[in-house]
Amino acid sequence: MSHRRTVFVVSDRTGITAEMLGHSLLSQFEGLEFRRVTLPFIDSPDKAQQAATQIQAAADNDHERPIVFSSMVNENIRNMLKLDCALNLDFFEAFIAPLESELGRASSHTVGKAHSVSNFNEYNARIEAVNFSMAHDDGIKPRDLAEADVILVGVSRSGKTPTCLYMALQFGIKAANYPLIPEDLGEIKLPQALAPYRHKLFGLTIAPDRLAQIRTERKPNSKYASLDNCRFETAEVEAIFRREGVPYINTTSKSVEEISSTILHQAKLERKVF
Amino acid sequence: MSHRRTVFVVSDRTGITAEMLGHSLLSQFEGLEFRRVTLPFIDSPDKAQQAATQIQAAADNDHERPIVFSSMVNENIRNMLKLDCALNLDFFEAFIAPLESELGRASSHTVGKAHSVSNFNEYNARIEAVNFSMAHDDGIKPRDLAEADVILVGVSRSGKTPTCLYMALQFGIKAANYPLIPEDLGEIKLPQALAPYRHKLFGLTIAPDRLAQIRTERKPNSKYASLDNCRFETAEVEAIFRREGVPYINTTSKSVEEISSTILHQAKLERKVF
Repeated sequence: MSHRRTVFVVSDRTGITAEMLGHSLLSQFEGLEFRRVTLPFIDSPDKAQQAATQIQAAADNDHERPIVFSSMVNENIRNMLKLDCALNLDFFEAFIAPLESELGRASSHTVGKAHSVSNFNEYNARIEAVNFSMAHDDGIKPRDLAEADVILVGVSRSGKTPTCLYMALQFGIKAANYPLIPEDLGEIKLPQALAPYRHKLFGLTIAPDRLAQIRTERKPNSKYASLDNCRFETAEVEAIFRREGVPYINTTSKSVEEISSTILHQAKLERKVF
Repeated sequence: MSHRRTVFVVSDRTGITAEMLGHSLLSQFEGLEFRRVTLPFIDSPDKAQQAATQIQAAADNDHERPIVFSSMVNENIRNMLKLDCALNLDFFEAFIAPLESELGRASSHTVGKAHSVSNFNEYNARIEAVNFSMAHDDGIKPRDLAEADVILVGVSRSGKTPTCLYMALQFGIKAANYPLIPEDLGEIKLPQALAPYRHKLFGLTIAPDRLAQIRTERKPNSKYASLDNCRFETAEVEAIFRREGVPYINTTSKSVEEISSTILHQAKLERKVF
């Protein structure tokens, strides 16, 4: 059995963007396993030297060339990561030159511009959206529905909560969360409180067997988690969505990113944060 | 006055990674304003044709060449976005060939591998972490502290809540949130409930004037929001952090990404989600 290859993500900031792009690229090579190491905030020659030493050590130990995804604004520091013992792919270097040429000006080569919090309004929009989602999880006051940018409706465990939070954090969108729950007679109705906000509703549904699996993790052997009940509830809400003209998506095989991005674009919401 | 140049982000998936990298690159060109258009889920020749038409229309209207950041696994669809009227930079194309060469195998060219939810355990870890953070915002039950990967402590509005949620969503980390609140005599103490979990604590602090600004948005003209009180509270918690040996960071000029990433790495937490 061969040693696992080490993948480094080295960034002068958080490394989160480089991690995501690196992950996306490596997911194209199925069946390969990697040891992953992120080295964030590498913003000085000293730190770059330490990172280079770590990469060299991995090359010596693994008997496989490490892969280094980097994202470094400073050219001198970036070049310190270009080692013979590893493949270095820098996301910044590849694109900054054609952009400079297209825009007809030099880039500022200043670290940390993207996540600058100098824009207090944008910062506030994001935190406000998070607080809104937190305050209105599973049951929103009617007078606050007016404030929501979008109101997610669906059965319990269809993905509303993480979607609301992701939309708040990533896009600054105030997403409210309104669960559709069976009434005493088993029927599910669109609550009267939502009537004035029909245009803001977005429905989530999910495959019954997947819903049963998720609910079983929470309440094993309950009526709530039974496949029969999950079939009934999802059929009911899908009928409501169609009858009432509420746009909806099936979250079964979608990540939180995919659900959030789909709603953002289909509902034509304006993001407050970039 | 010149027309604003349009920046397109075109992706066969959500476009979120490409948006982040594009934003990071463009933030290097200060003072330029762009119109931003994201076209997600462009995964067929038909949709690529529509995207190309939109890019061409922007080129005609703006009298400035659009910039197109794309991230397309399929080569044919990717090539449909290479228009003479725009600068196209594809994040996938630039890196997949050197990776194929290094890894000695062809990539699968399959869309959507990165956000595949086929790994039910990883999906669960993320949702569980989100539910954990939601359930334990502002006041956690002592018996649940044992379950937390990290416990964030700090004064009200120092950034604990969004950081907990971001760590849950991005890393699958169970982050609890324990507010440090002045007691009757004005003093702030580390609560007794936290004593057994000293090794899991991570402190947040913030510049008093910034804290006063944030609190004023919430409760104008209150003692809570006054600069004097904010000075007192932050001095108290910083003294506690130093006295008790709790690692801490100052969140004043940091984004949620930066705070989360710093804690992840300084506390040597193991992320559950990639």
